Amino acid sequence: MQGEFELISRFFTPMPPGPAAGVALGVGDDATLLVPTPGERLAVSVDTSVAGVHFPEDAPAEAIGHRALAVSLSDLAAMGARARWCLMSLTLPEADDAWLAAFARGFHALCEATGTTLVGGDVTRGQLAIGVTVMGEVSPADALVRGGARPGDRLAVTGALGGGAGGLALWQRGIHDLDHPLLARYLRPLPRLAAGLALRGLASAAIDISDGLLADLGHVLEASGVGADLNAEMLPLAEGLAEALGDEAARHAALCGGDDYELLVSLPPSRLAEARRRLADLGLSLSLVGRITAERGVRGVAAEAMPGWQHFSGDTP
Amino acid sequence: MQGEFELISRFFTPMPPGPAAGVALGVGDDATLLVPTPGERLAVSVDTSVAGVHFPEDAPAEAIGHRALAVSLSDLAAMGARARWCLMSLTLPEADDAWLAAFARGFHALCEATGTTLVGGDVTRGQLAIGVTVMGEVSPADALVRGGARPGDRLAVTGALGGGAGGLALWQRGIHDLDHPLLARYLRPLPRLAAGLALRGLASAAIDISDGLLADLGHVLEASGVGADLNAEMLPLAEGLAEALGDEAARHAALCGGDDYELLVSLPPSRLAEARRRLADLGLSLSLVGRITAERGVRGVAAEAMPGWQHFSGDTP
Repeated sequence: MQGEFELISRFFTPMPPGPAAGVALGVGDDATLLVPTPGERLAVSVDTSVAGVHFPEDAPAEAIGHRALAVSLSDLAAMGARARWCLMSLTLPEADDAWLAAFARGFHALCEATGTTLVGGDVTRGQLAIGVTVMGEVSPADALVRGGARPGDRLAVTGALGGGAGGLALWQRGIHDLDHPLLARYLRPLPRLAAGLALRGLASAAIDISDGLLADLGHVLEASGVGADLNAEMLPLAEGLAEALGDEAARHAALCGGDDYELLVSLPPSRLAEARRRLADLGLSLSLVGRITAERGVRGVAAEAMPGWQHFSGDTP
Repeated sequence: MQGEFELISRFFTPMPPGPAAGVALGVGDDATLLVPTPGERLAVSVDTSVAGVHFPEDAPAEAIGHRALAVSLSDLAAMGARARWCLMSLTLPEADDAWLAAFARGFHALCEATGTTLVGGDVTRGQLAIGVTVMGEVSPADALVRGGARPGDRLAVTGALGGGAGGLALWQRGIHDLDHPLLARYLRPLPRLAAGLALRGLASAAIDISDGLLADLGHVLEASGVGADLNAEMLPLAEGLAEALGDEAARHAALCGGDDYELLVSLPPSRLAEARRRLADLGLSLSLVGRITAERGVRGVAAEAMPGWQHFSGDTP
């Protein structure tokens, strides 16, 4: 693309990253040279967001920039990894300065908030799409994986569910008020990086909820070779969700809607209180939603069937 | 995208990479966990290839897969880095099994040929585009950068030039015979990874020729704060180029055409013979094309103005 270098340098290299950022040679050469932390694993993931598929084409540019990075960082959160670096591939139909400036603002603000350094990227012409590769670090013993859930473990989710699907529904109805909590959840999801770090050593398995609770739970169960009892009535609903969609659609959104980017974790009952304390320090709730079973498959379960379910006090076996 | 997981698992995880590949946790979790080599720098780069922009939409799928990886690996070659891992973001309008199988074949074959392990990716629906993030390793002292060219250094290129532009010209004329050397160069460029490794300790600066010799030389000169004398008449022309385009257009293609993915290096005259010996062992030529000057800018220079130019014997001062 003509002017690629100029575009990149104008919007995507705000300051030269120093040695503290683990960047030995920054943007501007054929490749960037990074300095991995000795003894740590490098966690890598890529997600591509396509206009009209993953976000509305007419969403605010700043939100698009934020969101494209957030969905990738969410994968690092689910590994219990510290976010370190990212690369961005931006494909866009035309170079619109105002759009690019807002897009870059949203992207950079989340970089800064999460300690992620943008270390490379490219700009090409085509249908609007953003691919973000993220790199994080985690020590081998600390990594949260999908395959560690064991029968008897509890299932819990951070924050609240259904906000992604609820926000999308509002947007499609023509409600574009970004201050609405559901639209904020949909367009500016917050990757739960701090929660992922806090849950290291406590969670037996973790995944981020991008495809919907039920689908992502399925990935954990399959990887762990276990099943689950799930109490759909106890799911923590996103603020304003029941009002916007009605009770039944709200519960469906929390169960099956995607784009929430909360964490679903399994953990032994004995660790639930400590996990809740740590997340409370981050201003985040951790809600019990079910338990792991040896029997495969997912079964609905009533709240009263589970000791300590409704009024968990931290000492339930 | 519906079926994303199935698509990825069917075409893009042919075998579980073992510890030898530096993969502690492979595809299938939220992120892949890699094991960087202690003491080495991690070289990272991303390139996106868009159909109709970077390659013809109707190019063979196998070539598209090969090419998308090749252009990214070329950046690692220019750093003197060993290729280690890659991630692929595939955006495609529809899931066509035969197309995907051929695409994956081209991609995997180059992975195998270069020792690159595919460790992640995603598949989304949209205009055909492929983003490839590559990760390589290089020890800090060995990295080839753009900024090291010094006055008196010689400028040299690997292989031959103009093949990318020549191949594109043929394709646009409706000549789609992939056995034609120019079309092979254009659609299946070979990243000069082995050459990059061989030139460590010899080259003072390096870049891969993706935008055209003149443009990429400009990047080296700017980064190094120097200028160059360039002998355009001595450029090594790709096989069949003069026949296909005529002499003048051939020379222009070699000077300004993009997509050659050869390496342009600067090096002290005393190291030229050794560099040539090492590349000869790889079956690759290294052609002298100019010299670095203290005076900024690029000037044309006749062959006879440069001692040792035409019949370089290895002992030219």
